[in-house]
Amino acid sequence: MFRSSQSTSQSIAPQLKATARAGSNIAFIKYWGVANPRINLPLNNSISMTLGALHTTTTVEWDAGGRLGADEVTIDGERVEGKKAERVTQHLDLIRHLAGDRRYRARVVSRNNFPMASGIASSASAFAALTVAAVAAIGLALDRTRLSAVARHGSGSASRSIFGGYVEWERGNDDATSVARQLFPAEHWNLRDVVVVVSTAEKAVSSQNGHTLALTSPFNAARIDSLYTALQEVRAAITLRDLNRLGPVIEQDALAMHAVMMTSKPSLLYWQPGTLEVLQAVRRWREQDGLPVYFTIDAGPNVHLICEPAFERELLRRLQTLSGVRSTLTSGPGDGAETVDQHLF
Amino acid sequence: MFRSSQSTSQSIAPQLKATARAGSNIAFIKYWGVANPRINLPLNNSISMTLGALHTTTTVEWDAGGRLGADEVTIDGERVEGKKAERVTQHLDLIRHLAGDRRYRARVVSRNNFPMASGIASSASAFAALTVAAVAAIGLALDRTRLSAVARHGSGSASRSIFGGYVEWERGNDDATSVARQLFPAEHWNLRDVVVVVSTAEKAVSSQNGHTLALTSPFNAARIDSLYTALQEVRAAITLRDLNRLGPVIEQDALAMHAVMMTSKPSLLYWQPGTLEVLQAVRRWREQDGLPVYFTIDAGPNVHLICEPAFERELLRRLQTLSGVRSTLTSGPGDGAETVDQHLF
Repeated sequence: MFRSSQSTSQSIAPQLKATARAGSNIAFIKYWGVANPRINLPLNNSISMTLGALHTTTTVEWDAGGRLGADEVTIDGERVEGKKAERVTQHLDLIRHLAGDRRYRARVVSRNNFPMASGIASSASAFAALTVAAVAAIGLALDRTRLSAVARHGSGSASRSIFGGYVEWERGNDDATSVARQLFPAEHWNLRDVVVVVSTAEKAVSSQNGHTLALTSPFNAARIDSLYTALQEVRAAITLRDLNRLGPVIEQDALAMHAVMMTSKPSLLYWQPGTLEVLQAVRRWREQDGLPVYFTIDAGPNVHLICEPAFERELLRRLQTLSGVRSTLTSGPGDGAETVDQHLF
Repeated sequence: MFRSSQSTSQSIAPQLKATARAGSNIAFIKYWGVANPRINLPLNNSISMTLGALHTTTTVEWDAGGRLGADEVTIDGERVEGKKAERVTQHLDLIRHLAGDRRYRARVVSRNNFPMASGIASSASAFAALTVAAVAAIGLALDRTRLSAVARHGSGSASRSIFGGYVEWERGNDDATSVARQLFPAEHWNLRDVVVVVSTAEKAVSSQNGHTLALTSPFNAARIDSLYTALQEVRAAITLRDLNRLGPVIEQDALAMHAVMMTSKPSLLYWQPGTLEVLQAVRRWREQDGLPVYFTIDAGPNVHLICEPAFERELLRRLQTLSGVRSTLTSGPGDGAETVDQHLF
């Protein structure tokens, strides 16, 4: 992909420093399972809504003067070392390679506007923002499709956060074709994602490692097979802005993904007591009281509740009655990753 | 099956009244999904341990005098009407048919030695005890294999409770071949089943109805396919009395069954917050402290913990520290269903 892109990507004068902001996203059809872990080629298409209110801002400055002996990474005010820093350096290596200059080290400062301990996956927004900032600072001109492919290397779901609104990541067959595209912009449908935080404990197995386990579940192939129809349903429901059509499909796929996780070897059980309290309550509220709210769950214990703005207040009121709910965060759909003027250092 | 059985089953002088006791059972490989709901022909073989300490005692008296206009059913001291009574009458109809006398009505009094509200499935022990008592009282001589086929009509898992110890119910292809058999008697291995009661709420969907939904899950076929190996593992582990070989397989199948339930249409979510509290604790105790305990879960929120006697006390002590645990009940393996002398009326 990168070799054949010479005609469209031209080097411009490098600014050496750039800042980008990218929203997290919530997947309606999940990315779970990797066909090629080296390039994060997924086993299936996924569809998500980019979150406007939960985002990462990242400044990257390339050190042309050669003062840095290694990349320097600061996240939410703390210098990061070890595996986390290595993952950033690997991603910068890819961008250094694309820019044709492997010598530059970088200073990276990143800040999430949501608490890390909220259990919201920050890797999607983090690698989308890192990609856009690092690419801009080094002076590469890549379109969103290609930025999406680059971001995918850092974290699969980051490929979707490059775009705003409602986004589908095509599985593709190789590095060039496994890219996201926008289905509809944020203005198309003002859905709300109420993130219900029930646990702030760190995950025992990172989702990055979990992806390689999907193939060990007896249910993985059946889930992939069932997605052809599910993806069609989700596209149609978003097109028609029909939550009662969207909801059952996203609940089914969230449960299917967790079923694959639970039956992997080793078994991954991300749910906590509070998870079940919220799931049971949401089903009760919907079935008994007609509250149009549906759940989805990422690779963790926290629950994302999807509703329309008219029911958000009532939902938040009811969530306060549940003993396992620690906090909530709400976001609507937002724009794709963009450079911004305000640097973090 | 019943037609061809004339040579082995001979009518003896009816006593008209008999009492039988049958233990509940805990399945290591679950029965979930029915191929033919009329005769409870299952989709897969299942393996269980018959529980000695949790049982149902049932007295059946056939009314030769014609005083009863309908069957009279009393369970745990309460007269039962409606669907529950109908299910008993249907089962009695089968036994009346086998005995060649459709006129006799029956008085049935049944008592569980465990609280109904404990969430322990009582249908296995109930229909095993009802079968043995009703067959004996009407004067039919059936061997255990045939009793197992009769009990299966009332409740699939009741076919296993006819036998003691470790039992496999062969799926079979028809009414005659879908029967249970003993793998090992109770004395073979003193495993403990610690039933952890986390909720006493009645199930929203009975397991009887749930069985017909299994085919609507995208994972049902994959679960059935995976059982060929799982059944072999469970047989081998029981033969060798090897809990560390048995445990991972029974956890996997419990999670697989619940995965099928969750992804059925409609989705069945039997778990409650307390369920997850126990599952997470058990995994933590095992992985961090080496406590050799494994879980399984029937069609409900309560958790069955399987361990050897040496670790039962430590397990019970630790369970007291969990806020979601309402009570526990413990049983080892027990004998098959038998007639007893003491009548309930």
